[in-house]
Amino acid sequence: MTEKNKTSIPSPAPIAEPTGKLGVLLVGLGAVSTTFIAGVEAVRRGKALPIGSLTQMACIRLGKRTENRNPRIRDFVPLATLDDLVFGAWDIFPDSAYEAALHAGVLERSLIEDLKPFLSKIKPMPAAFDRSYVKRLDGRNVKPAANKYELAEQLIADIENFRKKHHCTRLVMIWCASTEVYLEPAPKHHGTLKAFEAAMKANHKSIAPSMLYAYAALKCGVPFANGAPNLTVDIPALIELAQMNHVPICGKDFKTGQTFMKTLIAPGLKSRMLGLQGWYSTNILGNRDGEVLDDPESFKTKEESKLSVLEYILQPELYPELYRDFSHVVRINYYPPRGDNKEGWDNIDIVGWLGYPMQVKINFLCRDSILAAPLVLDLALFLDLAQRAGMRGIQEWLSFYFKSPMVAPQLYPEHDIFIQLMKLKNTLRHLRGEDLITHLGLEYYD
Amino acid sequence: MTEKNKTSIPSPAPIAEPTGKLGVLLVGLGAVSTTFIAGVEAVRRGKALPIGSLTQMACIRLGKRTENRNPRIRDFVPLATLDDLVFGAWDIFPDSAYEAALHAGVLERSLIEDLKPFLSKIKPMPAAFDRSYVKRLDGRNVKPAANKYELAEQLIADIENFRKKHHCTRLVMIWCASTEVYLEPAPKHHGTLKAFEAAMKANHKSIAPSMLYAYAALKCGVPFANGAPNLTVDIPALIELAQMNHVPICGKDFKTGQTFMKTLIAPGLKSRMLGLQGWYSTNILGNRDGEVLDDPESFKTKEESKLSVLEYILQPELYPELYRDFSHVVRINYYPPRGDNKEGWDNIDIVGWLGYPMQVKINFLCRDSILAAPLVLDLALFLDLAQRAGMRGIQEWLSFYFKSPMVAPQLYPEHDIFIQLMKLKNTLRHLRGEDLITHLGLEYYD
Amino acid sequence: MTEKNKTSIPSPAPIAEPTGKLGVLLVGLGAVSTTFIAGVEAVRRGKALPIGSLTQMACIRLGKRTENRNPRIRDFVPLATLDDLVFGAWDIFPDSAYEAALHAGVLERSLIEDLKPFLSKIKPMPAAFDRSYVKRLDGRNVKPAANKYELAEQLIADIENFRKKHHCTRLVMIWCASTEVYLEPAPKHHGTLKAFEAAMKANHKSIAPSMLYAYAALKCGVPFANGAPNLTVDIPALIELAQMNHVPICGKDFKTGQTFMKTLIAPGLKSRMLGLQGWYSTNILGNRDGEVLDDPESFKTKEESKLSVLEYILQPELYPELYRDFSHVVRINYYPPRGDNKEGWDNIDIVGWLGYPMQVKINFLCRDSILAAPLVLDLALFLDLAQRAGMRGIQEWLSFYFKSPMVAPQLYPEHDIFIQLMKLKNTLRHLRGEDLITHLGLEYYD
Amino acid sequence: MTEKNKTSIPSPAPIAEPTGKLGVLLVGLGAVSTTFIAGVEAVRRGKALPIGSLTQMACIRLGKRTENRNPRIRDFVPLATLDDLVFGAWDIFPDSAYEAALHAGVLERSLIEDLKPFLSKIKPMPAAFDRSYVKRLDGRNVKPAANKYELAEQLIADIENFRKKHHCTRLVMIWCASTEVYLEPAPKHHGTLKAFEAAMKANHKSIAPSMLYAYAALKCGVPFANGAPNLTVDIPALIELAQMNHVPICGKDFKTGQTFMKTLIAPGLKSRMLGLQGWYSTNILGNRDGEVLDDPESFKTKEESKLSVLEYILQPELYPELYRDFSHVVRINYYPPRGDNKEGWDNIDIVGWLGYPMQVKINFLCRDSILAAPLVLDLALFLDLAQRAGMRGIQEWLSFYFKSPMVAPQLYPEHDIFIQLMKLKNTLRHLRGEDLITHLGLEYYD
Ligand SMILES: NC(=O)c1ccc[n+]([C@@H]2O[C@H](COP(=O)([O-])OP(=O)(O)OC[C@H]3O[C@@H](n4cnc5c(N)ncnc54)[C@H](O)[C@@H]3O)[C@@H](O)[C@H]2O)c1
Ligand SMILES: NC(=O)c1ccc[n+]([C@@H]2O[C@H](COP(=O)([O-])OP(=O)(O)OC[C@H]3O[C@@H](n4cnc5c(N)ncnc54)[C@H](O)[C@@H]3O)[C@@H](O)[C@H]2O)c1
Ligand SMILES: NC(=O)c1ccc[n+]([C@@H]2O[C@H](COP(=O)([O-])OP(=O)(O)OC[C@H]3O[C@@H](n4cnc5c(N)ncnc54)[C@H](O)[C@@H]3O)[C@@H](O)[C@H]2O)c1
Ligand SMILES: NC(=O)c1ccc[n+]([C@@H]2O[C@H](COP(=O)([O-])OP(=O)(O)OC[C@H]3O[C@@H](n4cnc5c(N)ncnc54)[C@H](O)[C@@H]3O)[C@@H](O)[C@H]2O)c1
Ligand code: NA
Ligand code: NA
Repeated sequence: MTEKNKTSIPSPAPIAEPTGKLGVLLVGLGAVSTTFIAGVEAVRRGKALPIGSLTQMACIRLGKRTENRNPRIRDFVPLATLDDLVFGAWDIFPDSAYEAALHAGVLERSLIEDLKPFLSKIKPMPAAFDRSYVKRLDGRNVKPAANKYELAEQLIADIENFRKKHHCTRLVMIWCASTEVYLEPAPKHHGTLKAFEAAMKANHKSIAPSMLYAYAALKCGVPFANGAPNLTVDIPALIELAQMNHVPICGKDFKTGQTFMKTLIAPGLKSRMLGLQGWYSTNILGNRDGEVLDDPESFKTKEESKLSVLEYILQPELYPELYRDFSHVVRINYYPPRGDNKEGWDNIDIVGWLGYPMQVKINFLCRDSILAAPLVLDLALFLDLAQRAGMRGIQEWLSFYFKSPMVAPQLYPEHDIFIQLMKLKNTLRHLRGEDLITHLGLEYYD
Repeated sequence: MTEKNKTSIPSPAPIAEPTGKLGVLLVGLGAVSTTFIAGVEAVRRGKALPIGSLTQMACIRLGKRTENRNPRIRDFVPLATLDDLVFGAWDIFPDSAYEAALHAGVLERSLIEDLKPFLSKIKPMPAAFDRSYVKRLDGRNVKPAANKYELAEQLIADIENFRKKHHCTRLVMIWCASTEVYLEPAPKHHGTLKAFEAAMKANHKSIAPSMLYAYAALKCGVPFANGAPNLTVDIPALIELAQMNHVPICGKDFKTGQTFMKTLIAPGLKSRMLGLQGWYSTNILGNRDGEVLDDPESFKTKEESKLSVLEYILQPELYPELYRDFSHVVRINYYPPRGDNKEGWDNIDIVGWLGYPMQVKINFLCRDSILAAPLVLDLALFLDLAQRAGMRGIQEWLSFYFKSPMVAPQLYPEHDIFIQLMKLKNTLRHLRGEDLITHLGLEYYD
Repeated sequence: MTEKNKTSIPSPAPIAEPTGKLGVLLVGLGAVSTTFIAGVEAVRRGKALPIGSLTQMACIRLGKRTENRNPRIRDFVPLATLDDLVFGAWDIFPDSAYEAALHAGVLERSLIEDLKPFLSKIKPMPAAFDRSYVKRLDGRNVKPAANKYELAEQLIADIENFRKKHHCTRLVMIWCASTEVYLEPAPKHHGTLKAFEAAMKANHKSIAPSMLYAYAALKCGVPFANGAPNLTVDIPALIELAQMNHVPICGKDFKTGQTFMKTLIAPGLKSRMLGLQGWYSTNILGNRDGEVLDDPESFKTKEESKLSVLEYILQPELYPELYRDFSHVVRINYYPPRGDNKEGWDNIDIVGWLGYPMQVKINFLCRDSILAAPLVLDLALFLDLAQRAGMRGIQEWLSFYFKSPMVAPQLYPEHDIFIQLMKLKNTLRHLRGEDLITHLGLEYYD
Repeated sequence: MTEKNKTSIPSPAPIAEPTGKLGVLLVGLGAVSTTFIAGVEAVRRGKALPIGSLTQMACIRLGKRTENRNPRIRDFVPLATLDDLVFGAWDIFPDSAYEAALHAGVLERSLIEDLKPFLSKIKPMPAAFDRSYVKRLDGRNVKPAANKYELAEQLIADIENFRKKHHCTRLVMIWCASTEVYLEPAPKHHGTLKAFEAAMKANHKSIAPSMLYAYAALKCGVPFANGAPNLTVDIPALIELAQMNHVPICGKDFKTGQTFMKTLIAPGLKSRMLGLQGWYSTNILGNRDGEVLDDPESFKTKEESKLSVLEYILQPELYPELYRDFSHVVRINYYPPRGDNKEGWDNIDIVGWLGYPMQVKINFLCRDSILAAPLVLDLALFLDLAQRAGMRGIQEWLSFYFKSPMVAPQLYPEHDIFIQLMKLKNTLRHLRGEDLITHLGLEYYD
């Protein structure tokens, strides 16, 4: 937005207070979910810091640079506290959060043992699952049902039971389950809510299990975030439902690791008008996610999500001499010695003054779930905030967290992480009636 | 700045047209200067692209995202064209730009030979030089003088002769000479213009040769940029002179290579609230600049410039748990096989959720002068623009180009390259009366 | 061999002198072949050094350390000189060596232009080719024939014509053509010379074009080396023919780049009894070879060749605790910005004292054909030497040059490059009746 | 040695059996020593494997390749077993092995706690120490004495007390203490045993504390190995004493980490006659050893040891075109986040066919003490073996373990790790009357 057009911006509604329990419903109780749950509990017990979480750690600058006003975000907007959170999950394996955390191999055994009584109590509800959407997995903790519509009804029942049992005033749902195979958008079945419901009943193959969870959440008025690259809630039918039921939604695909790095480096190269000849990215990882992505169809979903980032950031249509013809290769290799410590190697071929070539190589020894867990926390708290602030449908200001951000149909997605962060923070400023930051700063001179 | 305080921003003055020749006076005719000069000439002849230069290549987004207004910067603000530029230089070696370019070994021999007639004509004027400020160099093309004040007077004469000889309507001066030894700010001699002039006459050791060039420029009303980390124009006496004579100034130390990367990565880590345990940076380079920096005193000047970057970006005072105690080591090693292809290796120890460590390694096979040359061009054109727009003194909006940006005394320097770029672009928008960008964008929803 | 068993070693026959021209027949006139030919010519003209070639550069230590006898290999054994070499080639494209060298993009244009008259005269003979063995290529310079046997007869005619036309006293042939698709050994057709000739006439699909070249060479008494991983001469039928006709043969797959590095590092790890958990190797390259290897079937041939190396060096059967279960992944990605500069990135997960893990990362910015060309030269000269020394059949002592060395059926291949080099040098010592080196050296003490 | 000269090799004496306890006396009870001691105990308890140790893990090939004789080294030569070992130490800090191991931060806390009763009993004897030889350290557990000779006498008493107290039949001593400052060889004081003893009494500064330990050991007939780069036992006076008293000695400076890698890669480059333009090595480490090496004088001792390696391996005198003028830079930087995990980054500029340049980058994430501990074990056992086999003075066959191997005065040191290993194994074969391996292998053909 721009200053002049201020009139067109909806002025912020009052924000309801976050009283009572907030239930966080996780689809999939794997590496990311258990790292998130165990971490929140460890933080609540004062054993660790919620590093990587903006809602818990970040400050927001207000006013002029010389005013020195930098409150914590959580003191600036009314968020649920960690103590308010209760957790639920679905998974195709019956393992409790304790067993699943051990299996995931992300956290140190001693921490998991400390939290054993707490984690053991979190047992996954039976999943809505179908092997044709995740070829490498097979589990028994699965709901039987006549058709997809019936599955959705069972999920709705799960949600309402959870709400009652845990006395929650609000809920949010986050997809942290495996990446499903690549599905083309199917306007005939995804185009309207009506068509979608008909397709569910007809058991149509363009309705993936993840869509059933999203549908169930929205029917129950529960905000939904999608941490994987599957289509899921990013179809007209479900966007319509979100609008109708006043529910905020966002996605897709948590931005961590290599893509996170890409969205730092690429805007940096563009900021300096350095050209790009090629970008080769390879990843090695050895966890269950890596096993699932070893299947070419699941990989295709991920690849699409990872490839588009550069195109959008670099704007080849504006800068054909710099960014039109670069070669972009992304590979993921299942390599068991790495475990959850997904490692990336990037080779970037850039071009400078008069066309002289240079190279940047980046080796990122990261930990996948350690990077993803704080995003789950922020999304849970921000979606709940959005709902209390009366925001509904696509939350573009949460693009910061995603590799393939959902946006209004007429817009291109913004991938530059710095613009995304500015959008997020200016949204918070706007919600509280504070001035937006432009970084002009001429008032300090003369 | 913020929306509310708009009233306090000086409203943009009309900008004088860039008619006539613009003389670019370069202190030092080494690798950077010759790469810049030869490059501009190659671009003028249609043989190469000015990649890396915002003034030549970049667009600027205006209005709303859906308006699709993205003019080239050079079509948006009135800049001198490449055809308007004429070049002059001082150096302690008598080599012409042709010989110096061959010696520097940056550009391909065949390109240099093509431009031989043009480059051979650019011969350096004798330098104001003193070996005690650059220990590793010794040259004969040096001005004899009774004292530093006399040297400054000779430089002033050089400037005015150049102006006349080349029929320039405007001039700018850019320090592209070797890094001088580390000097502490000396309030007694640097504090006021009067004290400064006295110290020059007294030949005081706190007056480095670079200060004489800056003094001469400002006396002649010529904007001055400092591409090296030496104090030079960043002292109260010369800031006072710049204000008095209505001359824009900026510096210090071109931001290229490793530090450029640092100012991409560090804001990215902070954007996600990832902690930092340590950052180890080593550089290998084999050109004359590397030889000069092999002297511990010159290195100290550079090291100070390179070290402060992280402190400012990461704000340890706001985020003590994340950024207080990291270990930051910067090394530069003279390694002749590299030539001008300065290569950096960075090891970054970061910390995520619950304190788990991760590592990023960056290997940048860069070309020092290829990265610096377009910055010289942009600074020349933007300083000239600033002068025609009536801006004087420190140009904070040009921080984008520097490792140690000059700022108003009450402010901390902004090192985040994305904020710097936003500041630069919003300054241009402001100069032309366009709306500033805030990236809120809520008007696209609901 | 061991000292005691000396009696069983065939004692060296006298070696015929290398008088007259040696014709080097290259199958494939691509990047490797043209880099080899142009390089030999540049060396003959005194413009460059034959770096990477043992026959041209290396010394060989004789006697005790204190004797200081280190003649050049080429002064120690009677080799053809560079001046004796004449070149011929087959290719499916009609480009001369001049055009092919330009296309390959390995050597600087200026060098190729200097050699233009020489290179233009080398024009490829029409190839024996069949697209079903190299799916990504299609060329018109191809021999028509009723069946494979007829093709072989045409190749024999080519060889004899070349011999006459260029007045060669000796010939050698080296396969430098594209990697063919993976073929399983087919005992029924490859098992005996008789079966093989029948299969050629029957146009059987287990007879690849490369086998026709090898057959033709051996029929003409011409030593044959195989630089690619295809089976080619490594089948019982052709080994039988080599024995019968007294022709030396060797192969397969030039050991350069990443595999070369592997055979340095792996013996080093084993020398220290450091364990291995995994080795991930990825390659990016952008030349025609890369394009061919982008085809999964050609890649499979290469992959087999690249994977076996570690198994043999590390001897998991002797060291199960250290080397039984490591994960070994090799990837090749076609990435055009790299051109011929194939780049490798290796991640090696090793294990030390008490099981503690460590990592080695190797990034090799290599040039494929620059590494391969001197191997072609050495193989040509050493095969010719072997023939003059009366050696026939598999030349295990040339294992040094290959990723998948051919060995006697009862033996495992030796991949350790240091053992291979010792074997090569001790073979030369043996040929000249010098003592073999054992590196005991106790005679220097007490 | 060579076959013909077999007569000059001393034929192997019978080897005394290793009955009774072997006392291992460690100078310095820091990271390496405690990792060694705790590791041996963990292995004795069946909790871990002695990975990295040839005496415990390696096999040795005997006879022909087809014989398949590959006994473990420890079954082939009579070595002390792990159960026979008892440990003693000196240190300037009074911490027991338990406390020192915790401080070192190499092994997991849980392992150290398991071994607490055992480790706590190992308490260091007061050290012979002088701060002017290790500037960064200061400890109180130090022997007072009138002069250096008296200190040596106290050490002799310590040794004999230990022998009696622990009922040892044999002892060995290994220097695992800090690197002392660089000392020039001082022929006047180091030249003969007599001069050396006079200098001790005169408290001459060319007698470092490490020499006193070595002197005491040799006087007591105890074999001595030097794991640091200090001169120590590598002076004529002490070599004379070793000969006289029939004691084996070896050193200097454990070859681990980066130098270990160098001695793999450099012979590999030379094997292929690839030229070298430069080798830049940087190390980051954060343990006490790193702190000591941060002192320029201690670093100089280390640097000398690290630099010479390449010169010897590459033989520039034989290969001036390839190896005469390369640039070799070695840096060590103290960087606390690394702890004991010393990390190396190497950049290697190589040259191939016709002079084309290539690069290899190696990033070694190693663990210093994990690599050193098994070397301590092997040296203890092999020195004891040597003594029982009647070998005395310099043990060149143990060069395999050292960065600066001690050799007979007329010889150059052998740095190639593969030659070193061959020498070691052929020495063992020789001791047992087995054939030496030459890798000729012609007997398998024809
Ligand atoms: N940094 C990151 O970790 C990161 C980043 C981006 C995206 N993601 C995505 O987040 C998701 C979770 O990652 P993870 O590492 O936790 O994977 P994981 O394999 O450890 O866990 C996923 C869990 O989902 C379960 N599951 C699969 N289908 C289900 C269904 N229909 N209903 C209920 N449960 C189902 C699986 O059984 C498994 O336990 C993956 O899709 C991954 O691609 C992760
Ligand atoms: N990427 C980059 O190249 C980069 C980045 C940041 C800063 N810099 C700085 O830019 C400057 C120029 O870099 P370069 O690579 O061209 O170095 P260079 O050594 O090639 O050229 C510097 C020239 O300045 C001359 N000189 C020294 N003192 C002088 C004086 N008093 N008057 C006139 N001439 C003098 C020297 O003789 C030399 O020719 C250096 O200070 C360098 O640190 C360069
Ligand atoms: N370092 C190295 O370069 C290296 C290492 C190991 C193996 N190799 C192998 O060496 C071979 C040559 O490599 P290159 O880089 O020169 O490849 P290239 O693609 O540049 O050249 C191969 C040439 O062979 C020709 N060809 C294909 N089939 C033929 C046939 N049946 N008869 C005649 N010509 C035929 C092609 O037209 C092409 O011109 C490849 O198989 C490659 O895998 C190369
Ligand atoms: N990979 C490796 O770890 C490696 C490789 C090569 C060489 N080294 C060398 O091995 C030695 C030990 O390494 P570390 O990591 O164990 O170091 P450390 O600093 O942990 O231990 C050395 C110990 O020696 C003690 N010490 C110093 N001077 C002494 C003296 N005169 N008498 C008795 N004790 C004394 C110190 O107090 C300290 O506890 C160092 O010299 C190091 O350079 C180690
Ligand atoms: Na890959
Ligand atoms: Na360094």
